[in-house]
Amino acid sequence: MQCVLTPETEGYDQIDSVTTGASVLVEGVVASSQGGKQKVELKVSKITVIGKSDPTSFPIQKKRASREFLRTVAHLRPRTNTFGAVARVRNTLAYATHKFFQDNGFVWVSSPIITASDCEGAGEQFYVTTLLSNSADGGSLLKDIPATKDGRVDWSQDFFCKPAFLTVSGQLNGETYASALSDIYTFGPTFRAENSNTSRHLAEFWMIEPELAFADLNDDMACATAYLQYVVKYILENCKEDMDFFNTWIEKGIIDRLNDVVEKNFVHLSYTDAVELLLGSKKEFEFPVKWGLDLQSEHERYITEVAFGGRPVIIRDYPKIKAFYMRENDDGKTVAAMDLLVPRVGELIGGSQREERLDYLEARLDEQNLNKESYWWYLDLRRYGSVPHAGFGLGFERLVQFATGMDNIRDTIPFPRVPGSAEF
Amino acid sequence: MQCVLTPETEGYDQIDSVTTGASVLVEGVVASSQGGKQKVELKVSKITVIGKSDPTSFPIQKKRASREFLRTVAHLRPRTNTFGAVARVRNTLAYATHKFFQDNGFVWVSSPIITASDCEGAGEQFYVTTLLSNSADGGSLLKDIPATKDGRVDWSQDFFCKPAFLTVSGQLNGETYASALSDIYTFGPTFRAENSNTSRHLAEFWMIEPELAFADLNDDMACATAYLQYVVKYILENCKEDMDFFNTWIEKGIIDRLNDVVEKNFVHLSYTDAVELLLGSKKEFEFPVKWGLDLQSEHERYITEVAFGGRPVIIRDYPKIKAFYMRENDDGKTVAAMDLLVPRVGELIGGSQREERLDYLEARLDEQNLNKESYWWYLDLRRYGSVPHAGFGLGFERLVQFATGMDNIRDTIPFPRVPGSAEF
Repeated sequence: MQCVLTPETEGYDQIDSVTTGASVLVEGVVASSQGGKQKVELKVSKITVIGKSDPTSFPIQKKRASREFLRTVAHLRPRTNTFGAVARVRNTLAYATHKFFQDNGFVWVSSPIITASDCEGAGEQFYVTTLLSNSADGGSLLKDIPATKDGRVDWSQDFFCKPAFLTVSGQLNGETYASALSDIYTFGPTFRAENSNTSRHLAEFWMIEPELAFADLNDDMACATAYLQYVVKYILENCKEDMDFFNTWIEKGIIDRLNDVVEKNFVHLSYTDAVELLLGSKKEFEFPVKWGLDLQSEHERYITEVAFGGRPVIIRDYPKIKAFYMRENDDGKTVAAMDLLVPRVGELIGGSQREERLDYLEARLDEQNLNKESYWWYLDLRRYGSVPHAGFGLGFERLVQFATGMDNIRDTIPFPRVPGSAEF
Repeated sequence: MQCVLTPETEGYDQIDSVTTGASVLVEGVVASSQGGKQKVELKVSKITVIGKSDPTSFPIQKKRASREFLRTVAHLRPRTNTFGAVARVRNTLAYATHKFFQDNGFVWVSSPIITASDCEGAGEQFYVTTLLSNSADGGSLLKDIPATKDGRVDWSQDFFCKPAFLTVSGQLNGETYASALSDIYTFGPTFRAENSNTSRHLAEFWMIEPELAFADLNDDMACATAYLQYVVKYILENCKEDMDFFNTWIEKGIIDRLNDVVEKNFVHLSYTDAVELLLGSKKEFEFPVKWGLDLQSEHERYITEVAFGGRPVIIRDYPKIKAFYMRENDDGKTVAAMDLLVPRVGELIGGSQREERLDYLEARLDEQNLNKESYWWYLDLRRYGSVPHAGFGLGFERLVQFATGMDNIRDTIPFPRVPGSAEF
């Protein structure tokens, strides 16, 4: 807010201390503004400097400090217009998420963060352990780490008495609650120890994973669509000022783009038709297009940005190249999976109907060389009162990117964790 | 819901498959019930068994399986009345938490889960690492772990290029956002690698940590009180059936106890007066009572359960034995800290006004032999535009315990993590 001081203002002698970063208490009268930039301004009758800020050392000097630099002062960047606006829109998207699911009878379930379950596959997981130490002298001597006779790490002496990891998804746990309480959703942090230094990946990010009981892929698509339209509409209505800011300074036209999401029907397309469309496009892609291969980001963006002019697109019924838990379609070649694609971001939501038939599920585990014993509790859901169910996952920071126009996902979360950096 | 079938019901021949754990689809007419146990029942016109459940192998056989046993089938226990009710009340408490803070203008901030910041002290933290592995042959050979020349773990080769931990609190990060956006709150998982096998401790639990800008300890106490009364009132109004269940089966009188929390004023007591009260009680305590010593659980429970007959009590102005960031009072002996005690659970909320004065804060870090360099960003908040601020922390599972009457904290979270166990 523009504050107007005059020499008559009480505390006017402190004016030299009112520098960038300082905190002040102002009292006065709100009046219509004579300048064109804002509607109202504050005619200040009294000003008190609460906390000074040395103007020569305050780290954010330039009005337009680079995003890269601001990441090094992540404790101060929320004081800038951009990061203040991102924080508020992020908050509102989170609250709208809870509101949408709560209003529709979903129960929030906190899926575990640490897991010693063998289900998730240890590929890109972080280990959670108390076997290491980091004392003042530089930390664990390798020879002091508990070991077995053959010189391997002795997991039985770890906190959980076996290897434990940070979760990569709450879905399987969520399914257990959906099989008990009906519709549920998770909303919590998930982790990937993936060494990718891109503008689309974080090592720590928040996921929203609803799971619908007595539901098929069509229900799942309908839920994903209703959810996305709800939260986008919610920020357009409740974050007007911040959205205007993004529209002016970050991505021109973002408000129109988001309005389209709310108002236009999403395109539905089978994977098979999507492949036909790409093959018929005559466009040169870097990665090959062929039935049976996964779609790459460039293909997804072509479909949503070019072929359908910016409308969100749901592609469904993928070949059986995806996760073991996706339900096999009657054609025996495809699974009841769907991806929701949006312009700029690409895949925003991925979901599927889950395989509720025990024999099919066991066959899939075998096909993918996964150990059935590890999945005993997941299979129990099919042994005891199995129900058709479906769900999806949405990376929350991708949603913030989509909704704010921020280029780099590291600027959508307060303290980004990426290879080589977990500061603050 | 009681469902009444007759031989005329369509699908009546499937009745043998309607066993514990099975999932069924029933259609019919809701009618007033003739039995006394429920007001309405469903007169079923058609029943379809969706998923069978072998009655001889379904793990939850007895109606009253022990809580210990149910923890071993945490994937099925939400199907019991007790754990279904706990899950719903937990959900409603979480939503009421968001609603309270959002309605009062707080911004939800996701504080980081993984942190390489040296601020938190590595005492009871879990390490997060990619230096270990767990291949099919049994995992890392110690000799394959990256090491420095002197035989220590080489952290520079770890994912974050230095030791990284699971967070024990989001407070310090929350303060950075409160210093930018005004009132904020965190609500996310936190971790303690504490080897305590008690009914009050979890290795993984959810914390709520609001931080109020331009606020002192009185504001903090008022916020904690309003918050607790709001969420308790919210579940009494919105979870009537489940609360009746707890009142009947888990803790007789819990509804009255919670009504008292909503309706009665909380007792305010200085630490000094609390010590006087305990000394004057003539009661024999296990731990000594003396000005300058921390209050133990037995003391806290005596105060809230006996001395004030079940009313919540806020004790304030503790001696300077607590955390470095608490604001020193003018007497030089005490700090502006408060604990909110409730019957049965003891300390439910702990909070303080934060030391906003740079010189005092630095002196406290020195006193506690903490490394000021590690706290550079936290100190920056006092260097640049410092504001008086205050906040508190609440362990969400303690709140669920308090609100449901469940004895063991392991039964208040879907998949509890404790020493030796991170299953599912």
